[in-house]
Amino acid sequence: MNKTISRRDALEARLRAIGDERYHDKHPFHHLLHSGGCTQDQVQAWVINRYYYQCSIPLKDAAFMSRCEDPDMRRNWRSRIVDHDGGVDDGGGLRRWLKLSEAVGLDPDYVASRKGVLPATRFAVDAYVRYVRDKPLLQAVASSLTELFAPKIHAERIEGLLAHYDFADDRALSYFRHRLKEAPKDVAYGLAWVLDHADTPEKEDMAAEALIFKTDLLWAQLDALHSAYVEPGRIPPGGWQPGEGAA
Amino acid sequence: MNKTISRRDALEARLRAIGDERYHDKHPFHHLLHSGGCTQDQVQAWVINRYYYQCSIPLKDAAFMSRCEDPDMRRNWRSRIVDHDGGVDDGGGLRRWLKLSEAVGLDPDYVASRKGVLPATRFAVDAYVRYVRDKPLLQAVASSLTELFAPKIHAERIEGLLAHYDFADDRALSYFRHRLKEAPKDVAYGLAWVLDHADTPEKEDMAAEALIFKTDLLWAQLDALHSAYVEPGRIPPGGWQPGEGAA
Repeated sequence: MNKTISRRDALEARLRAIGDERYHDKHPFHHLLHSGGCTQDQVQAWVINRYYYQCSIPLKDAAFMSRCEDPDMRRNWRSRIVDHDGGVDDGGGLRRWLKLSEAVGLDPDYVASRKGVLPATRFAVDAYVRYVRDKPLLQAVASSLTELFAPKIHAERIEGLLAHYDFADDRALSYFRHRLKEAPKDVAYGLAWVLDHADTPEKEDMAAEALIFKTDLLWAQLDALHSAYVEPGRIPPGGWQPGEGAA
Repeated sequence: MNKTISRRDALEARLRAIGDERYHDKHPFHHLLHSGGCTQDQVQAWVINRYYYQCSIPLKDAAFMSRCEDPDMRRNWRSRIVDHDGGVDDGGGLRRWLKLSEAVGLDPDYVASRKGVLPATRFAVDAYVRYVRDKPLLQAVASSLTELFAPKIHAERIEGLLAHYDFADDRALSYFRHRLKEAPKDVAYGLAWVLDHADTPEKEDMAAEALIFKTDLLWAQLDALHSAYVEPGRIPPGGWQPGEGAA
């Protein structure tokens, strides 16, 4: 058996197992959301908080590029920023998320202001940007590999939202449809890079640790949302109050 | 007299005066280079060291974007990275600089390896990346405004190199021709932003200080080059030795 191939396969399997165990598609908030169990307030709270994550992704990817000394790798990585920010006129994923915000009855300017975002959301997301800025490059790349698991949750979300919520239509959900195309392209590059570079047991552990860190910060965002807005719901000081930022 | 306009005009004049006094077009090495007074070794030393600056510019601009929370500003700023890195297949300014490297008799892979770069060049350039990463956004933007003065030096350089050096042709100099178009677009955006945001005397001072810092780091690179490679020439340990990296 070819040892190199088996090492790569074993690491890929290990990374995928992390998703099976810890990816936030397993969080009860997502089950509630995708099965039609969320109130409009809960959907709005999710949209507001998730925007903070969305709009931090280009900061995270720029932080990555600011320490990536290989021009070819930067050229590949840049499309992630393009996907989210888009062009000066057309915008990208961020504007598509603001379309979703409108569809669920929120003022997109309110959402873009990032007021009302739960402190725990900020902490988790800011930790991600810092992680990618500060950690070894291998871990910065490996932390992006939750995209291995994203197409499945996006497909479930599109189906669940369309089936259960009046606001859901093609325009509202265009963010997720785009991600179905974008994420696989990004993750193919990132996964190959990690499998190429995690060439010792220590580095394999580092890659796995980075992916676990990433699943933790995704999960923490949903825990915060659940704690604040699902019955009984304890909204912390500064957190969005239902009715605020309505369109 | 409209006070707002006069404040903006006064600041712009102050910033332009910094260029008149301190921009590196006044450095004796540039006079030597543009007037045909450089040996091939000196031209090669310049190309090798300047590449370190070139290839750090996308890191600097990504560092800027990683802290720029305004998506519209990021969308505008991104073209700077595109100008230098270019696309996966075509490359950009960096590859054009490597064409120049070939034209002056260097192995482009040697130049891209950044071996032989003078330590003082690294210190100056790395200080720039850190400055843009760490300083207030106003200063990060203002430090880019040496582009106000760049088209003049690029035009002089194209003319001087074409007149005096056999290696100089359109292909070798395409980096500079592209910059003639790129820099004015970037600086128009950056200058307007600085004039809009430096709205107190303290902030005007900060903007001026940032531009002075930038002129200092450009000047320091040429001082290092001059010290190492112009007669009598004291090449520091680790610095490129004539003959190394020849094509």
